[in-house]
Amino acid sequence: MTKLQMTSDIRGLNEECGLFGVWGLPDAAQTTFYGMHALQHRGQEGAGIVSNDHGRLWQERGLGLLSDVFRDPQKIENLKGDSAIGHVRYATAGTHGIENIQPYLVHFNDYQMALAHNGNITNALTLRKQLEDTGSIFQSSSDSEILLHLIRRSHEKTMKAKIVESLRQLRGGFAFLLLTPEGLFAALDPHGFRPLCIGQLADNQYVVASETAALNMTGAAFVRDIQPGELIKISDQGMQVSHYTNNVTLNIDAMEYIYFARPDSTIYGVNVHIARKKMGRCLAQEQPVPGADLVVGVPNSSLSAAQGFAEEAGLPNEMGLVKNQYIARTFIQPNQDKRERAVRMKLSAVKEVVAGKSIVLVDDSIVRGTTSMYIIRMLKDAGAKAVHVRIASPAFKYPSFYGVDMQTTTELMAANHSLAEMTSMIQADSLAFLSVEGLVRSINLKTPYTGSGLTTAYFDGHYPSPVYDYEASLSDKVAAGLVTFDAEPMAAMPEIISVKKGV
Amino acid sequence: MTKLQMTSDIRGLNEECGLFGVWGLPDAAQTTFYGMHALQHRGQEGAGIVSNDHGRLWQERGLGLLSDVFRDPQKIENLKGDSAIGHVRYATAGTHGIENIQPYLVHFNDYQMALAHNGNITNALTLRKQLEDTGSIFQSSSDSEILLHLIRRSHEKTMKAKIVESLRQLRGGFAFLLLTPEGLFAALDPHGFRPLCIGQLADNQYVVASETAALNMTGAAFVRDIQPGELIKISDQGMQVSHYTNNVTLNIDAMEYIYFARPDSTIYGVNVHIARKKMGRCLAQEQPVPGADLVVGVPNSSLSAAQGFAEEAGLPNEMGLVKNQYIARTFIQPNQDKRERAVRMKLSAVKEVVAGKSIVLVDDSIVRGTTSMYIIRMLKDAGAKAVHVRIASPAFKYPSFYGVDMQTTTELMAANHSLAEMTSMIQADSLAFLSVEGLVRSINLKTPYTGSGLTTAYFDGHYPSPVYDYEASLSDKVAAGLVTFDAEPMAAMPEIISVKKGV
Amino acid sequence: MTKLQMTSDIRGLNEECGLFGVWGLPDAAQTTFYGMHALQHRGQEGAGIVSNDHGRLWQERGLGLLSDVFRDPQKIENLKGDSAIGHVRYATAGTHGIENIQPYLVHFNDYQMALAHNGNITNALTLRKQLEDTGSIFQSSSDSEILLHLIRRSHEKTMKAKIVESLRQLRGGFAFLLLTPEGLFAALDPHGFRPLCIGQLADNQYVVASETAALNMTGAAFVRDIQPGELIKISDQGMQVSHYTNNVTLNIDAMEYIYFARPDSTIYGVNVHIARKKMGRCLAQEQPVPGADLVVGVPNSSLSAAQGFAEEAGLPNEMGLVKNQYIARTFIQPNQDKRERAVRMKLSAVKEVVAGKSIVLVDDSIVRGTTSMYIIRMLKDAGAKAVHVRIASPAFKYPSFYGVDMQTTTELMAANHSLAEMTSMIQADSLAFLSVEGLVRSINLKTPYTGSGLTTAYFDGHYPSPVYDYEASLSDKVAAGLVTFDAEPMAAMPEIISVKKGV
Amino acid sequence: MTKLQMTSDIRGLNEECGLFGVWGLPDAAQTTFYGMHALQHRGQEGAGIVSNDHGRLWQERGLGLLSDVFRDPQKIENLKGDSAIGHVRYATAGTHGIENIQPYLVHFNDYQMALAHNGNITNALTLRKQLEDTGSIFQSSSDSEILLHLIRRSHEKTMKAKIVESLRQLRGGFAFLLLTPEGLFAALDPHGFRPLCIGQLADNQYVVASETAALNMTGAAFVRDIQPGELIKISDQGMQVSHYTNNVTLNIDAMEYIYFARPDSTIYGVNVHIARKKMGRCLAQEQPVPGADLVVGVPNSSLSAAQGFAEEAGLPNEMGLVKNQYIARTFIQPNQDKRERAVRMKLSAVKEVVAGKSIVLVDDSIVRGTTSMYIIRMLKDAGAKAVHVRIASPAFKYPSFYGVDMQTTTELMAANHSLAEMTSMIQADSLAFLSVEGLVRSINLKTPYTGSGLTTAYFDGHYPSPVYDYEASLSDKVAAGLVTFDAEPMAAMPEIISVKKGV
Repeated sequence: MTKLQMTSDIRGLNEECGLFGVWGLPDAAQTTFYGMHALQHRGQEGAGIVSNDHGRLWQERGLGLLSDVFRDPQKIENLKGDSAIGHVRYATAGTHGIENIQPYLVHFNDYQMALAHNGNITNALTLRKQLEDTGSIFQSSSDSEILLHLIRRSHEKTMKAKIVESLRQLRGGFAFLLLTPEGLFAALDPHGFRPLCIGQLADNQYVVASETAALNMTGAAFVRDIQPGELIKISDQGMQVSHYTNNVTLNIDAMEYIYFARPDSTIYGVNVHIARKKMGRCLAQEQPVPGADLVVGVPNSSLSAAQGFAEEAGLPNEMGLVKNQYIARTFIQPNQDKRERAVRMKLSAVKEVVAGKSIVLVDDSIVRGTTSMYIIRMLKDAGAKAVHVRIASPAFKYPSFYGVDMQTTTELMAANHSLAEMTSMIQADSLAFLSVEGLVRSINLKTPYTGSGLTTAYFDGHYPSPVYDYEASLSDKVAAGLVTFDAEPMAAMPEIISVKKGV
Repeated sequence: MTKLQMTSDIRGLNEECGLFGVWGLPDAAQTTFYGMHALQHRGQEGAGIVSNDHGRLWQERGLGLLSDVFRDPQKIENLKGDSAIGHVRYATAGTHGIENIQPYLVHFNDYQMALAHNGNITNALTLRKQLEDTGSIFQSSSDSEILLHLIRRSHEKTMKAKIVESLRQLRGGFAFLLLTPEGLFAALDPHGFRPLCIGQLADNQYVVASETAALNMTGAAFVRDIQPGELIKISDQGMQVSHYTNNVTLNIDAMEYIYFARPDSTIYGVNVHIARKKMGRCLAQEQPVPGADLVVGVPNSSLSAAQGFAEEAGLPNEMGLVKNQYIARTFIQPNQDKRERAVRMKLSAVKEVVAGKSIVLVDDSIVRGTTSMYIIRMLKDAGAKAVHVRIASPAFKYPSFYGVDMQTTTELMAANHSLAEMTSMIQADSLAFLSVEGLVRSINLKTPYTGSGLTTAYFDGHYPSPVYDYEASLSDKVAAGLVTFDAEPMAAMPEIISVKKGV
Repeated sequence: MTKLQMTSDIRGLNEECGLFGVWGLPDAAQTTFYGMHALQHRGQEGAGIVSNDHGRLWQERGLGLLSDVFRDPQKIENLKGDSAIGHVRYATAGTHGIENIQPYLVHFNDYQMALAHNGNITNALTLRKQLEDTGSIFQSSSDSEILLHLIRRSHEKTMKAKIVESLRQLRGGFAFLLLTPEGLFAALDPHGFRPLCIGQLADNQYVVASETAALNMTGAAFVRDIQPGELIKISDQGMQVSHYTNNVTLNIDAMEYIYFARPDSTIYGVNVHIARKKMGRCLAQEQPVPGADLVVGVPNSSLSAAQGFAEEAGLPNEMGLVKNQYIARTFIQPNQDKRERAVRMKLSAVKEVVAGKSIVLVDDSIVRGTTSMYIIRMLKDAGAKAVHVRIASPAFKYPSFYGVDMQTTTELMAANHSLAEMTSMIQADSLAFLSVEGLVRSINLKTPYTGSGLTTAYFDGHYPSPVYDYEASLSDKVAAGLVTFDAEPMAAMPEIISVKKGV
Repeated sequence: MTKLQMTSDIRGLNEECGLFGVWGLPDAAQTTFYGMHALQHRGQEGAGIVSNDHGRLWQERGLGLLSDVFRDPQKIENLKGDSAIGHVRYATAGTHGIENIQPYLVHFNDYQMALAHNGNITNALTLRKQLEDTGSIFQSSSDSEILLHLIRRSHEKTMKAKIVESLRQLRGGFAFLLLTPEGLFAALDPHGFRPLCIGQLADNQYVVASETAALNMTGAAFVRDIQPGELIKISDQGMQVSHYTNNVTLNIDAMEYIYFARPDSTIYGVNVHIARKKMGRCLAQEQPVPGADLVVGVPNSSLSAAQGFAEEAGLPNEMGLVKNQYIARTFIQPNQDKRERAVRMKLSAVKEVVAGKSIVLVDDSIVRGTTSMYIIRMLKDAGAKAVHVRIASPAFKYPSFYGVDMQTTTELMAANHSLAEMTSMIQADSLAFLSVEGLVRSINLKTPYTGSGLTTAYFDGHYPSPVYDYEASLSDKVAAGLVTFDAEPMAAMPEIISVKKGV
């Protein structure tokens, strides 16, 4: 991501993470572990859980997959109490210290509090500098710590009021879980850039998760998506819903539907698999491949779109590529020379399927293009006659600043090359992308607000809010009229407009 | 597996393992690592590599996945030399010591030798007892060690003659790799119960692997399947093919096509994915489901069969179940209570796909039936109207003794219950299996010998050879005429019938 | 230690730690490792090093002994740069998280800074509460973090001025090392409760360490002890000595001579071994044992005193007890039942030496008395006729607040029992202690200030400064006239009285 | 050790190990752990325990110190049963695999058996070759495995008779513990080269250990030393003592008294500390240092001898050197350059003691001389006026073949240099050794056999038995008359001369 950096150590860390929280449940940590297991795809670098045992908070965290961090079953048992929050963290190069693994647990002379965050705060550098200049010390290189400092600095009387005052200072994309002795707080930014939902296991047994797949894992019934600008407090008195601002809109990141979320998750009423399948159908309509013999999806993330494409095109949807199910754990040295090796260790072609055939290769996205090139080479080595690449999302041309660790535009193939150049670079017989309109129509999000409800800035340069500390990085594109910003809705007088108990 | 046990520690260990060997290649161990990565599905309990550095053999091995055992890149670097063999081992309860991890490396006063084995020797207890009674000491509880002892005891002059003499004493299923300072030996049992194939990277750079998928991974060109009764020697003088017996037939385990092998592997000319798809097609013909809305395959192993079923039945093939890609590494305590939890951690239903639908659930096999029951419950919880289970293989009724860790028949649902009982036990709306004839026709193996070329004893009780030490365990079924044996072809005078250089 | 605790997590952590720092040396981290090795006795719970590579600070730290933390040689190599500080931390029950392992490394938007601390800040709770109430967040449960917050909050212009302003707010015992891109700062409290000394390897290659033994280890020449109230800055411009206050006195903790420091260290001109030997001599004069056959010291810490006692008494100094040299690493569950086992694993009697003999058992101190009881029992089991215990320090009756993790007085045997009771409790034939006068005379510290230069509060209840946050805990004893305090010399107007370059 | 090697992998592994066994005790493994803790000095490379739970043998073993191997308390709990044997193994370069860690556990079709060995079998290569040539396979590169093979090959009827037949084929030094379902067997070679003793905890609760210090640790009462040529069987029927040969003599390795054993151990009635002190006294008589100021022993192994020297010479025995108690665990790369660093990390001089003084430095032995050189340099750097080295054992000139990993004579300084050369090489002011006569007189072993009861071959080239496979390595010295051998007493007709119950 193109990101202003005051020192090389302060980096955006919180992109594409997974959150899970539970209140009022014996074995809260065990349930949190199961919930996080369903969210492991959102972050593989590290994982942690903080539990609340009658006001005493316990923490376990570590680097690696959930199964590595909690290999010793004693660790789950250490996490006593009937409420807990957990976090899985995405791998971002160069920030590999355990001090960056969430949830953060902080100790005051009168209090303990734990925080887990998914998103990216676009005014983090400004806030951090203000905080540091007036005496704050940051132990992590993550922006997520900022909310803890703001809460600590607040002069409001109640924890909820402190949180409200603090949230109003943040800009950008954020979903937060805070665990305190008195309750589990969940908050979403005023644009709803990141998904967050609530489930229920029993009376006064609530679950909060980044995706509904984690509710299913724990057997919780879906209650509702958390709405933009909401602050939820779950405590022994039940669930209380407030708004910390009335200037809200819905702009969930389209990438959640395209790539991040699990196919069995449903976000704001739209199932991810169904949405992807529709993207594939729409892509087949927009960008057909006359004369093709069959459709091959890149496993696993593009299988839904491939199915949709095949059905719409009336072509067989074939298993031309097989994914090694052990790849998640295989160490590959990340140098340039090893990239092709990594692709070969992850995917292999089924010769008997692809040999002599003209193939529509459906993928969900292209970033640098190198992986596509290696896959196409693999298919041709296996005898494919032609490989026509169809991407079930629009071309990435702009960075995102709301919580996705996208490469800077200098590495984005589509930001720097024409379609013909790209086709040649990846050695495809043809290449085409889904249109932004097709994407929006396929997801077909119902929202009470104006607009599509989606953030599509990656594709069209239209940002639903100012990007604050990152604005300078876009100045050229702004000048060229390629990039536009909506005004910040939250800038207007924020106030708490509603408090209601329960759902 | 029903198995005679003289002590509780002597157990069959070598079922469903994966072998890889290479000769004449700088960085032999690194290539072996890549090859084994493609075979990881054949064994997750442990892995090891022995390399040959001009006559000095080096060993590294450990418990766990390949990526765990070789997490420290130094370990691969320790394995100097230009030839190597590797082994991945299947998890068998109760035999979890590192001493059972192959390849075995033994030291003589004049020699070093390493062995890797896939299969099950049916006269192992008899041979082991003979060896022990005349002074041999076994350090592992595995039968694989037997070949090393036989070779050591042989009075023949050359290593090859010693190996031949030793192989002739073995019965059952075995694929062996032996690495000695002078060459890499590969041998297959006279029935060809286990797959083993040869590839070539360059002149005098040979690769041997359990599956062709491993050849693809390393970029090797497929040369040929090793044939029943063959002993291959690869050395600096090239590849030399011999037969250690002329009494051979082909009876490869049908389970390789049904379940074990990767879909992108091809065994004796039949691609596994294509075979599975045909099993699905054949199943749809034999056991149609009128009025069904869609087909759902149990990921990942049943997706090929589901595709075939859907195509043949003219039904949509839908992603009604999603598999968690991190499950391979998640620790589940294996007690009875946790089984449902384990299934839920592995699979989840996509409500939007299955709700209100009548589903054909295609799975590759049923063993105890509990997993099926949990999946059906999951689909119904997600709103499925009906779940008709179609199994793309015949019902398991008999144990196998040629290298598969099948449960004893007391745990095999189909061995103890009628179809109606089974349907009720798993709470399906209907249940049906592929016929043995359908299985044979789907695989459609071309073999110069009589018969189908397959072992289908699990399904029909017909064993292509005597089962020696296990015979007593089948006596009731033999008496009842349920089980039959072919005579041992190898019993007749064995002789080396051919030696030819190269392929 | 009797300590006010606002929550159970905020505990004194920094007692008896070891500091080492180096500036201007290639392989600074390697040298720091060697220096810390010589200080391992001051802390076994954890260890860490931060190095400074031209302004970029690197950190490695972990739980356990130095050899555990840095087992992987790569970790030392990761610590690039030509300056570094290291810390070994004493084991304090209940504070076992890695977040408490020093040096602390903090990141600002414009700066990095690392801190290592040995001592105990007596107004820590007050300062921490002030800081937290105005918005600071503490990541560790250690008081050492306070200095970092004070520096960050300072409005002074230079780093040195910020440090001076911050140090003036601290009370109690502290030796600090701060590593910043611009220099290595070392500071000592105005009473000099903890030792800290400077050595030199070459021109502009300086070393700072808790004890001279660490200078010897690295081959550095001793330059000088850091004096109370000094702030030293070592940078590429050489060493600059300042005072941050002119109200100083010397009150080094007598326990450094009695127990903590290595015998080969010299503190303020007095070698520790020589001092201990004199304590033994003085003890023999004050508390002779007529009719004894031989002297046995408890290894290793009491061997110097035993030698002194034996020489003065004209008795043989015998090896009646042997210490197991591997005990440092042996895991003993710390429950009451295992205490005797732990003593037996650590020490054993030499029957042939002690059988039938009347023994003077010389030990350096008695805390709870249980260890003494087990040693006496062991000697009598081995046939000793009589065991006369002579303690080479006065009886512990009062807590210390300047940096020693002494048990609360409720556990101190001497605080709660008469000499006769103690003798009976430990089952000795007689028991006697060194007098406070004898202790002072044996150490015989030369100091330009009034008084002995030592803190002897443990023994006589005389505290050389107010104890601030701990005062309430002593109120009964103050009322009873048992405990007295000197006024705080630093309370008077502090000012920087001198800055001089070099030593 | 000069050792014939058929391949570079077959090396002597069993030198200076420690054995412990227990029969009839609940928590047998825990007691074995405590006993091994007292024997840790005899081997730091690896440790293992095998327990016997009513005929089922359990094994745990690993590389490193006992505290590393059994860090997880579960491992001790896994070792169920009421009898056990344990082994600590000495570090020998190049044989670092876990397969070499004892006790060895082997499985037969009808039996399990575990073996632990201390010593060196001088006809191992011959026996191993015979075994291998007739079909045996060795899994370890250790000679200790031989006994297992011999027992397995024996045609005798009872286990005891098999063991007797096997032991009679062995030559050299060996102390064996064998654990079988039916009993704990302990055997000693006919010369008693290695120590082994029996203790008793209660009726039918027996303990066997390499040193009496381990009996003390577990609270066992000393019963007797095992005598040369004895085979002890401890079972539920009590203890039965037999002789497997009547041709015995006592030739315990003098190095046990000089260096290996703990000072609190007593071997054949002679306490090790007392013996060392007498060696010091005798050395002072034979090699006085006129004009010396004080005596300094090299800690810890030479402190007894230094005390004896000081007492005899009427000089103060001072703590001029301090040993770092954490050195056991510190990683030092073993290249030549780091040797001085290693000495400095282990030892440091106390300047205040040695400055300006003429010192008698007492050490127990000199091997290569480099350590002595570094210590002398350290003392002179600390200001010592003169350093006169006195070695409390005779000069090492010949290799040993009965169980000590002595350097080959090419590295032994005394084997290749005159006294004057050695003095100069180590930069001492003078150098002198104890005489062989002085050594024998100091130990003063009472034995019913002729001779001193000691093996002093290192010093005088007189071997109490032929050295079999090693003879060729001494041929030059034999020809020169420097080396002589006694005939093998066991060569004469062996027979069991006595069987008695109990002690």
